[in-house]
Amino acid sequence: MTRGFLDDATAAIDTPAVVIDIDRVMARIEKMGAFMRTRGIALRPHAKTHKSLEIGRRQIAAGAIGLTVATIGEAEVFAAGDIDDLFIAFPVIAVGPKAGRLRALAERCSLSVGADSVEGLEALSAAVRDAARRPRVVIEIDSGGARTGVRPERAGALARRASDLGLEVIGVFTHGGHGYGGSDARASAAIDEIEGLATAADSLRAEGVDPRVLSAGSTPTATLSAQAPVTEERPGTYVYGDRQQAAIADEPFEDAALMVAATVVSSGSGAGFVIDAGAKVLAKDVSSLLPGHGSILGYPDAAIDRVNDHHGVVSLVDGGPRPPIGTVVWIMPNHVCPVVNLVDEVVVASQGRVVDRWPVDARGRNG
Amino acid sequence: MTRGFLDDATAAIDTPAVVIDIDRVMARIEKMGAFMRTRGIALRPHAKTHKSLEIGRRQIAAGAIGLTVATIGEAEVFAAGDIDDLFIAFPVIAVGPKAGRLRALAERCSLSVGADSVEGLEALSAAVRDAARRPRVVIEIDSGGARTGVRPERAGALARRASDLGLEVIGVFTHGGHGYGGSDARASAAIDEIEGLATAADSLRAEGVDPRVLSAGSTPTATLSAQAPVTEERPGTYVYGDRQQAAIADEPFEDAALMVAATVVSSGSGAGFVIDAGAKVLAKDVSSLLPGHGSILGYPDAAIDRVNDHHGVVSLVDGGPRPPIGTVVWIMPNHVCPVVNLVDEVVVASQGRVVDRWPVDARGRNG
Repeated sequence: MTRGFLDDATAAIDTPAVVIDIDRVMARIEKMGAFMRTRGIALRPHAKTHKSLEIGRRQIAAGAIGLTVATIGEAEVFAAGDIDDLFIAFPVIAVGPKAGRLRALAERCSLSVGADSVEGLEALSAAVRDAARRPRVVIEIDSGGARTGVRPERAGALARRASDLGLEVIGVFTHGGHGYGGSDARASAAIDEIEGLATAADSLRAEGVDPRVLSAGSTPTATLSAQAPVTEERPGTYVYGDRQQAAIADEPFEDAALMVAATVVSSGSGAGFVIDAGAKVLAKDVSSLLPGHGSILGYPDAAIDRVNDHHGVVSLVDGGPRPPIGTVVWIMPNHVCPVVNLVDEVVVASQGRVVDRWPVDARGRNG
Repeated sequence: MTRGFLDDATAAIDTPAVVIDIDRVMARIEKMGAFMRTRGIALRPHAKTHKSLEIGRRQIAAGAIGLTVATIGEAEVFAAGDIDDLFIAFPVIAVGPKAGRLRALAERCSLSVGADSVEGLEALSAAVRDAARRPRVVIEIDSGGARTGVRPERAGALARRASDLGLEVIGVFTHGGHGYGGSDARASAAIDEIEGLATAADSLRAEGVDPRVLSAGSTPTATLSAQAPVTEERPGTYVYGDRQQAAIADEPFEDAALMVAATVVSSGSGAGFVIDAGAKVLAKDVSSLLPGHGSILGYPDAAIDRVNDHHGVVSLVDGGPRPPIGTVVWIMPNHVCPVVNLVDEVVVASQGRVVDRWPVDARGRNG
């Protein structure tokens, strides 16, 4: 039977635990690095997936030009860990305590921040007005994800406003979040990213602003939109993989580089069993592509139907084998980002053995 | 307009933040304490909701006999904080590293643990065989929640097995989790708890085991099943309240003692707006009773349709007022337990001012 990342899991591991296979992680980092290098596209991985200095440094060593983060708090952690080139891919609103934090951050690292509103630009400009070193601005456009970002043709007007406020605009970015829906959605979201960024770049040029950076995001679209005029990609989840990404890419779940180790704690009330991994480690992300809350390695008939805080309730679809109480099972979660954000450290495995434990340095840095 | 827990939120708070109003918390703690005291029922609040020594101590001071926890890790934190009487309401499987941890824990506090299998009892017995002080056992029964627990009539056989293994059984417990479905479900789950515990108690007596503790759980059922022969209640969520509990109890959302403060960061792509509170602070719990991912105080027409890791995408159902970018809004989350587990500290407010910050001491202690 497939045994997960450790030779003798039961003795070695205190469940529930989030375990990464570092050899698989490095293979993923190097594969994405090589792909982008070949295409001549800058790689700026999104660090919200791993929130780890150890992983971030390995991504940089494998050719990434810097990291993407979601919050000022994440950027503070990576800057303190001497990762110098950071982009906050979020419409930062530098008001209240965030004004001073952003200013201090910009003075200690090479920082770019997202903006999609005049109000955001005005707050940013006020926050860094007399700073020794100021963040660059990247205008966010909506390429179909229907979340944040202005319409591509409006990017130029916003860039002009930023320039008028004394801010340096270096380009535009987007996240093709509508690519999380299977292979057709993925391909069409990648085209939307390319076309949206091209339109936005023209709109900047028309205002006299040079769009040096045309940055696309998301693991599903990263390899598909990595072509001119796009200059940069920001995939995050690729570093570990998860059940949803495997489904989107039509790859085996078993190739993930991160799994959750859990113990069978009860035979439950029906034909299934109950594990000690619930929503507080698997999170509650569901996917339209997949049933349940994760796949269990070696138990293809097992479905994690329900997760409460500390219980995962598993049914056995075709009455397949039922692991004895006390068995350690290995779960591929639906979405890896929130899982990592639930633990203080990841267990690092290599060739069947625990070789280290790494802190999730930026865990919980939500703002 | 209703302003949340702080008089001048924008200046005072760095969002997203989890904020409790300590006066409301204390009123909730005292109300539940008084209710159970009047009924002659022991109150053992579930600490997985708050994971806080400060809150746990206040619950004890208001008459709780001890705390309920979900994991050995949570129990370790509360025991280290000198809360002595702890019950792990979970089928503990004391294998691997957990064997030594459980033994050490039992030697430092007055500990009870749940069990619903022979395998669990055997592992427990082996783990604490020569311990100076051993945990008591409470047999878990399934009263309809279809999660963990044996059928009520089988509790006696398991208690007998525990006694044969040299373990002291003090009673039975259940969690009427099927009460999370509106007022009818709640009332019938409470009856199921009472009847299941009564049947299980009889089954223990038939095996010569005295069931001193008949313990029922869940905030929706706690006040309804607090009657003989039940001896103990273990509500958790009541301490803060949340949107789901308000819907179940038909109470106003606005009475919650915990809210998430978030900032409007974008006007988004449609008629709504986007906030900086996504799944990494609101979690992804949904409820069949409620649409979306939370209610926003003062914006009854706003629906949090979608939460990504760091974005909450809000629509305005009837085109109601749209808060300007930079506004701090106050959100009542669907389910409070996972929200608290996502942050390292809660901001403590009283009468409109920040008076303290308390660590979420047992955050992430999942195993």
